[in-house]
Amino acid sequence: MEMENIIKKIKFNDKELVPIIAQQYDTGEVLMMAWINDEALQKTIETGFVHYYSRSRDKLWQKGETSGQTQQVKDIFLDCDGDTILIKIDQKGVACHTGNKTCFFTSITKDGLVDKSNPEISPEELYGTKHD
Amino acid sequence: MEMENIIKKIKFNDKELVPIIAQQYDTGEVLMMAWINDEALQKTIETGFVHYYSRSRDKLWQKGETSGQTQQVKDIFLDCDGDTILIKIDQKGVACHTGNKTCFFTSITKDGLVDKSNPEISPEELYGTKHD
Repeated sequence: MEMENIIKKIKFNDKELVPIIAQQYDTGEVLMMAWINDEALQKTIETGFVHYYSRSRDKLWQKGETSGQTQQVKDIFLDCDGDTILIKIDQKGVACHTGNKTCFFTSITKDGLVDKSNPEISPEELYGTKHD
Repeated sequence: MEMENIIKKIKFNDKELVPIIAQQYDTGEVLMMAWINDEALQKTIETGFVHYYSRSRDKLWQKGETSGQTQQVKDIFLDCDGDTILIKIDQKGVACHTGNKTCFFTSITKDGLVDKSNPEISPEELYGTKHD
């Protein structure tokens, strides 16, 4: 089965995970980085929607399962070392739990950190009390 | 000093590193992912050229120090969790040691891995014998 051959080529770390970068497929905006294991990758490929592995909750989850902010898969790439994945997706709504489109909204400058947060929706609207 | 305040806000892992994603600033192409520590980040900000931390060689290095394929800094962002950095850069030549512009040239599909490698330069031309 092809999935087994794919999994064999990926160099998972000692926690059986690899980092995965999510990029909006049409604008090129980098939205977030998370972690994925073999099972989550398989679910992602099978369903066409991104599944990650949560290190804090120790479980597989579909992005947007609580918030509705799902990520539809367009393309998936493995890097030259086989230890990082880039996934091009179509983000429904926003990627960040803060309500920002991207998680990368804090600018690092010589003068310090500059918050460029510009939420499109409040976390309360996204989750009620639960954090996706 | 501002640098100390920046470093304090970053959640380095148990090896005192965080992942850093390099993106071509104008095209949006994601070029590579590597690791950075506090010293490499400081050098990057001070010099305007990207420095990484090599886990295999256990030392700080300037990207392109051997190959000439340097990365000029345009913008740096920290993510909402403080544990991943996105750096927007202007890549001189190619980012990947294989001679490809990007390290993400292997497509993961339902039918398996599809190599979309299209090197602009040979590794021999880039390095002679040494790998950057």
